[in-house]
Amino acid sequence: MDFEAFFKSELDSLHQEGRYRVFADLERHRGHFPRATRYTANGEREVTVWCSNDYLGMGQHPAVIEAMKQAIDHCGAGAGGTRNISGTNHYHVLLEQELADLHGKEAALTFTSGYVSNWTALGTLGAKIPNLIIFSDALNHASMIEGIRYGKCQRVVFKHNDLKDLEEKLALADPAAPKLIAFESVYSMDGDIAPIKEICDLADKYGAMTYLDEVHAVGMYGPRGGGIAEREGLMDRITILEGTLGKAFGVMGGFITGSAAVCDFIRSFGSGFIFSTALPPTLAAGALASIRHLKVSQFERARHQDRVRKLRAALEAKGIPHMPNPSHIVPVMVGDAAKCKWISDILLDDFNIYVQPINYPTVPRKTERLRFTPTPMHTDADIEHLVGALHSLWSRCALARAVA
Amino acid sequence: MDFEAFFKSELDSLHQEGRYRVFADLERHRGHFPRATRYTANGEREVTVWCSNDYLGMGQHPAVIEAMKQAIDHCGAGAGGTRNISGTNHYHVLLEQELADLHGKEAALTFTSGYVSNWTALGTLGAKIPNLIIFSDALNHASMIEGIRYGKCQRVVFKHNDLKDLEEKLALADPAAPKLIAFESVYSMDGDIAPIKEICDLADKYGAMTYLDEVHAVGMYGPRGGGIAEREGLMDRITILEGTLGKAFGVMGGFITGSAAVCDFIRSFGSGFIFSTALPPTLAAGALASIRHLKVSQFERARHQDRVRKLRAALEAKGIPHMPNPSHIVPVMVGDAAKCKWISDILLDDFNIYVQPINYPTVPRKTERLRFTPTPMHTDADIEHLVGALHSLWSRCALARAVA
Repeated sequence: MDFEAFFKSELDSLHQEGRYRVFADLERHRGHFPRATRYTANGEREVTVWCSNDYLGMGQHPAVIEAMKQAIDHCGAGAGGTRNISGTNHYHVLLEQELADLHGKEAALTFTSGYVSNWTALGTLGAKIPNLIIFSDALNHASMIEGIRYGKCQRVVFKHNDLKDLEEKLALADPAAPKLIAFESVYSMDGDIAPIKEICDLADKYGAMTYLDEVHAVGMYGPRGGGIAEREGLMDRITILEGTLGKAFGVMGGFITGSAAVCDFIRSFGSGFIFSTALPPTLAAGALASIRHLKVSQFERARHQDRVRKLRAALEAKGIPHMPNPSHIVPVMVGDAAKCKWISDILLDDFNIYVQPINYPTVPRKTERLRFTPTPMHTDADIEHLVGALHSLWSRCALARAVA
Repeated sequence: MDFEAFFKSELDSLHQEGRYRVFADLERHRGHFPRATRYTANGEREVTVWCSNDYLGMGQHPAVIEAMKQAIDHCGAGAGGTRNISGTNHYHVLLEQELADLHGKEAALTFTSGYVSNWTALGTLGAKIPNLIIFSDALNHASMIEGIRYGKCQRVVFKHNDLKDLEEKLALADPAAPKLIAFESVYSMDGDIAPIKEICDLADKYGAMTYLDEVHAVGMYGPRGGGIAEREGLMDRITILEGTLGKAFGVMGGFITGSAAVCDFIRSFGSGFIFSTALPPTLAAGALASIRHLKVSQFERARHQDRVRKLRAALEAKGIPHMPNPSHIVPVMVGDAAKCKWISDILLDDFNIYVQPINYPTVPRKTERLRFTPTPMHTDADIEHLVGALHSLWSRCALARAVA
């Protein structure tokens, strides 16, 4: 087999479909987020980032920056090993205590990424609990799907956020079989929110554990940034609450929180945890500072929601169609991979606005979109500039308008 | 099902088997590696770390430290997104160019960990190349095994480093089927080295791609730290060379290098790559500085090998049995999980020597061991202190001596 020819032909088909991904080469400016330098073959230009998952700009916060630099000065660069073999640093211990406290749980366990935390936790539960059935929301993240697949247990997919479908499927399953319901709070691409309380009620009724992914909510919702479950007073009803240090907390890494036994179980049996080099002390220290700050400061959350409202209102005033939802994610639907890329190229080249086109496999085909994530750092002028640019594009190109 | 009781009973069985893992809570001291503070319930103590995978101490190198702090000052904490969605930073681009150059390849691709790089690369190849057969060394790392399993392709396990067995299995396979041979250069727990040239010869003969994991070799072997394949002039015969930024380079993250097409293919189709937040700029900057330093400096490699020789000679002088191998890894065999933990507890409590017991699933049962990794920073006095402690333990406890 000519492997090179195979790889090239697979890549060609992505080009033809208009969904070949070109990464924007950026350099964010500390203290001037959302401004960044974009490197191109023709030189450098300043752009405004409109699609960052550093939702609150904490990756630029002085307390986080300072904690990270101090940890480097104190301990050096990497952790130097897996958590078991010389890689556990005192910052990891403090971070896991802080995360357990954030979610009102006995314990927490950190991973190298949110992907690895979902994959390892769900995979280990699925593989180790005999006859476990995992009920999985149809729109769960790739990392959850792959984790469940890894576990080789029975998987039952229920319709997205559909309580009736979930209950029908729970009722059909063997009453004696152990069960787990895996779902997210805020779904990242549509920005809708799960009916957490009602899902927990079903879990109680059918004796299931609950596994809630709050990666797009931790830091941003709840009085201490514990997520949607905290805001709704439901954290104690979640068996395993999973989150990330790489979005609103501004650093990198993933985590689970839960009982001491379940965290110790994943710690002791999870391949993706056992065999990975631990997070560098500097990342643990930065995340720790970020969580501590957001536990007490309401400013970032309030300003974030204000910016989201402002952007939505401005889009509505110009008739730019955006998907309504109760979260901070503002999807502007395009529905075609090539057109989506074309719009984002013009925004970047003509308006210095950077928003990555979102296409398959991140979202289903025909639902390609621009996904805007306003942060507390986006000014009124930034919003006006963005909406003006979209308005001019929509006027030029016969794109569908929302009916007022 | 009583889930809590299940988790506890599974953990109890680890305790009973003597392989329940207790993480040492450490704080490494920048500039004083291998010294670290160990936190315990009874206070803090200084220990000497003897099992770090920061093999060359680059996690403490001033050039790495400085580069990391500068990147934080420049760009902030995290990357703020996946590589595709706002997370590609200019440091990632420079790092991938540097890695491609290190291994003489057209391109490179970085991942959040070595685990994720193996899992994603092998899994994506296995899943996407129709009818691919992966020939996998029996002692390949968990991340490679899981990646191959993920791909759901045909897997043929050949006996560890056994050319005859590999050839027999290649000859038995469908000649028309695409093939890949996946193996490591330095195997981490035994420290032995694969016959890379002969495996490449077989790959040529049977039309297979080669996938070489050099995580325990990059930085440490070869005139520029390109690994065993560089040392032996074989880099051009490897289709995909995988490595880590978290061991000899002292930071965190994994990578592959290869043709532009194969790297782009994994970039475009690999779930573990696409859906993970990118490495923080500070880690990319630190790794870049570390690689650049080790490309030109021979000091660390020479001193490392000198320390390894010195430790082996001192062990031999006292008749402490250690597994011979041609690498920098010094395994002292114990062969029993509980005894292994007991020895390492005494070394820690009575001698302030920290070496983690290595047990199942990291090594097979009955081959439990202490795995010493001397670094350039371990002094003659450190070696004397360690060997003296082992000597006193071996004298006290009727442990088997090597016959002189």
